[in-house]
Amino acid sequence: MDFGDDDAPLYRRLAQRLWDGIEQAAMAEGTRLPSVRTLAAQHGVSLTTALQALRWLETRGHIEARPRSGYFVAKRTRRGKRGVGAGSAAGTAEAGGARGAGAKRWARPAPEIDEQARDHLAIAGESGGVRLDLAAAESSLYPVDRFSVLLRRLAYQHRDLVGSHVRGAGYPALRAEIARQAMQYACELDPEELVVTNGCVEALNLALRAVARPGDIIAVESPTYFVLLQMLRALEMPVFPIPSRASSGMDLDALRQALDRGVPIKAVVTVANGNNPLGSVPDDAAKRALVELLRERDVPLIEDDIFGDLCFGETRPRPVRAFDDTHGNVLLCGGFSKSLCPGLRLGWIAAGRFAERVKALKYTTSMATAELQQAAVAELLATGGYALHLRRLKAALQTQQHALRDAVLRYFPDGTQITEPAGGFVLWAKLAEIEGRRPSTRQLFELARAEGISFAPGHLFGEGDVFDDCLRLNAGNRWTSELEAAVRRLGELAADVTSSEPPAVSTSSAMPGR
Amino acid sequence: MDFGDDDAPLYRRLAQRLWDGIEQAAMAEGTRLPSVRTLAAQHGVSLTTALQALRWLETRGHIEARPRSGYFVAKRTRRGKRGVGAGSAAGTAEAGGARGAGAKRWARPAPEIDEQARDHLAIAGESGGVRLDLAAAESSLYPVDRFSVLLRRLAYQHRDLVGSHVRGAGYPALRAEIARQAMQYACELDPEELVVTNGCVEALNLALRAVARPGDIIAVESPTYFVLLQMLRALEMPVFPIPSRASSGMDLDALRQALDRGVPIKAVVTVANGNNPLGSVPDDAAKRALVELLRERDVPLIEDDIFGDLCFGETRPRPVRAFDDTHGNVLLCGGFSKSLCPGLRLGWIAAGRFAERVKALKYTTSMATAELQQAAVAELLATGGYALHLRRLKAALQTQQHALRDAVLRYFPDGTQITEPAGGFVLWAKLAEIEGRRPSTRQLFELARAEGISFAPGHLFGEGDVFDDCLRLNAGNRWTSELEAAVRRLGELAADVTSSEPPAVSTSSAMPGR
Repeated sequence: MDFGDDDAPLYRRLAQRLWDGIEQAAMAEGTRLPSVRTLAAQHGVSLTTALQALRWLETRGHIEARPRSGYFVAKRTRRGKRGVGAGSAAGTAEAGGARGAGAKRWARPAPEIDEQARDHLAIAGESGGVRLDLAAAESSLYPVDRFSVLLRRLAYQHRDLVGSHVRGAGYPALRAEIARQAMQYACELDPEELVVTNGCVEALNLALRAVARPGDIIAVESPTYFVLLQMLRALEMPVFPIPSRASSGMDLDALRQALDRGVPIKAVVTVANGNNPLGSVPDDAAKRALVELLRERDVPLIEDDIFGDLCFGETRPRPVRAFDDTHGNVLLCGGFSKSLCPGLRLGWIAAGRFAERVKALKYTTSMATAELQQAAVAELLATGGYALHLRRLKAALQTQQHALRDAVLRYFPDGTQITEPAGGFVLWAKLAEIEGRRPSTRQLFELARAEGISFAPGHLFGEGDVFDDCLRLNAGNRWTSELEAAVRRLGELAADVTSSEPPAVSTSSAMPGR
Repeated sequence: MDFGDDDAPLYRRLAQRLWDGIEQAAMAEGTRLPSVRTLAAQHGVSLTTALQALRWLETRGHIEARPRSGYFVAKRTRRGKRGVGAGSAAGTAEAGGARGAGAKRWARPAPEIDEQARDHLAIAGESGGVRLDLAAAESSLYPVDRFSVLLRRLAYQHRDLVGSHVRGAGYPALRAEIARQAMQYACELDPEELVVTNGCVEALNLALRAVARPGDIIAVESPTYFVLLQMLRALEMPVFPIPSRASSGMDLDALRQALDRGVPIKAVVTVANGNNPLGSVPDDAAKRALVELLRERDVPLIEDDIFGDLCFGETRPRPVRAFDDTHGNVLLCGGFSKSLCPGLRLGWIAAGRFAERVKALKYTTSMATAELQQAAVAELLATGGYALHLRRLKAALQTQQHALRDAVLRYFPDGTQITEPAGGFVLWAKLAEIEGRRPSTRQLFELARAEGISFAPGHLFGEGDVFDDCLRLNAGNRWTSELEAAVRRLGELAADVTSSEPPAVSTSSAMPGR
């Protein structure tokens, strides 16, 4: 193994040194490595550098992380153990020769894909532990029994939901129900402009592709939903960040100034109601002003309203789209994965004057959405009970947010700031400086992960490291003593993390102590 | 209404004339217009021009087509009838003002999207009539009852399939079953490289985006699956067509020559087994040669194997991927929408060395695939009966293809050529020249559509009009006397259609008679 020469970044050289040690000591598979702290102290490097070295070795399959336990020498046999397989099947005469050598028959790919995406895929793929990372509520908060009954009946009564080729923009009854729901908060949608999607993520993806091409600049709130940022990177659409506030959402003056300065913004994306991660809800005047500004400049607005139904106020806040009556300039994206049935992966888009383009893109992206779950959701919405379910879910979320917020204020270092969201699942916290140094939640993430606690580190929510001192916590789970213990531990770990060097450019050969 | 001045294309001027007539005569909504033939004769224009004029008026909502009946003056009231809506709902104070004016509150979009996509969307959206357009088998040919039982049981036993946030590359049991199925024809897939998708279309979309960027040239068979061409257009990836033969599939010499000439082909897409639309299955030597050629040139291959299980031979043909043991250079795409359960929209991709990139793209394209239907398919595959179902389905398809083929040979003009497919749903026919003139199935499509018969016109399957004298017919439906009558009528219409002018550039003021 060659990690590079003396000019390599510090963490690469440390990784080389660690691996040489493992090889020389002929450490057995499954041998536990020293803790991150111990390694940092032994080698006189920062925690960040030690973590980077371990992650580097992990990415290459040489070591592996186990939740709550730390890092271990990986099973080398995994790479040469798998059997030949299809020995008894047809066509084996063709199958001899080069086959049967082992499992990973081609080299692991270099880490070509976006590093932030990889980070999150790692989070999402990790099993066990205390999950504060996703914006997801626990299963018991959803009307699962009701859906069980509905799905069983539909699978019996409407058998062609299995046997028929699926076409078109979505199950008509569901499109009608979505429009009917929206009318309840005075947002007029035309079922004909609606396309049912595989979750709200697909809706956002189609919306972006309908209004912009690779290379086009997209303005987004900062901070914003990190999957949106990863999506924009995958679509090769550069991001123009607009500051966003926990109280009022996107800073319209900043957006106006950017447009005035001639920044060629092709579209704006807003998560207006129950913003992710800030939990903000702009007032109606701000929504109207946003619509008017963008109409004036002929810039389409993509609105993610997935948390709209989960805002805590007396009346359901209207989407920004409700203030655009006549121009079809707002592509409104919504879905049921947060509010009603996470497992069914149903979203939708009302694309206004872009509806035909969205329909065409849906066709070449995933053809159509399966209809069994559409029929179930349509029936639940039509036959009532959604409003009652929402009241209960929102009450639970509010209680859980309060408990989580109190715990953060109690257990995190002095000076930690935390949002008081107007809706949704998540809290957003900012760590205070420690002795003049900025703490890094990227580092905190790694430390916590080794102890089986996950959260969403702040850097995912913006470009570069601008939110590296922030973190997002999920309040979707019922408050338990285990959760409280995890938050307390997170608070202890948070007291330790300082960003002593920027991780991405650590080519200096100096070895700052920590 | 203004269709443009005297320099406008002939069909636009005809449309203007027709509309003026409708307005002057104050024709009521629902009034039937003269037939295409009558209009062509009355105005001394070709059938194509008459059709273009009608389609132009239809696109703008002035007239409407009704299956089997022709064109009618559209209901103008549709544009001003819809109620105010949310009168009793919360937030109506905000809702006054500009609202309530009518349904289409913004102008219909200009036909900006790809014309071929629109054409097909029109086909797919059309209801009723005799459907020979899709590649779809009828519902009764699928194990719908079996799925009804499975889905009911799963909805009862595994309630968290509704309530839990879905993550990851797919339901583990389904990924394992896909790999097990593939072993039966000696194709070794690693469950870890598999991603379950929303149909095979999503698999192809992810595959293309994993290996190429906008602007990259993709080589495809010619003719090929038209959704692939529309997808490439949407992804801004130029197409390099490689001739394909009904007997043997893609012409490898042509591909090699293109690579030798230095055409910067970024990836190749093949529908090898049971090719759509040709029904071809290359032999193993050709598959091996394709793998070796592309490995040598370091060009990834995307293989669409959705019809692989529906090939008629004694043994299931191996995918091209089976001949790439060690390089992970083939991204194999498959799915269950043709072979097992069209309505559940399940596909998959085994992306070899591109697996991590495909996983990341799936994450930002639709996050994850709903698991209820994955669990149902996994259980059906695990508990047996798939092989028996396939035998029955293939026997039915073969019978239906023979009947359809015989009818085409009987009723279509002399000289019509038609494939004898080795698998799949579809037949591909080529019309003979009529008195030295090339027939146009684009025109035939419009004539047939007015009589409630649909098929897939050849031009969709290639760039430009290279296959305008061809058509694809679906043999997925049980053979009936109604189907036979439709094919007979199609044959009569086919005797009439000649392409007297290229539709897209008909700016000449000459009025060729027909």
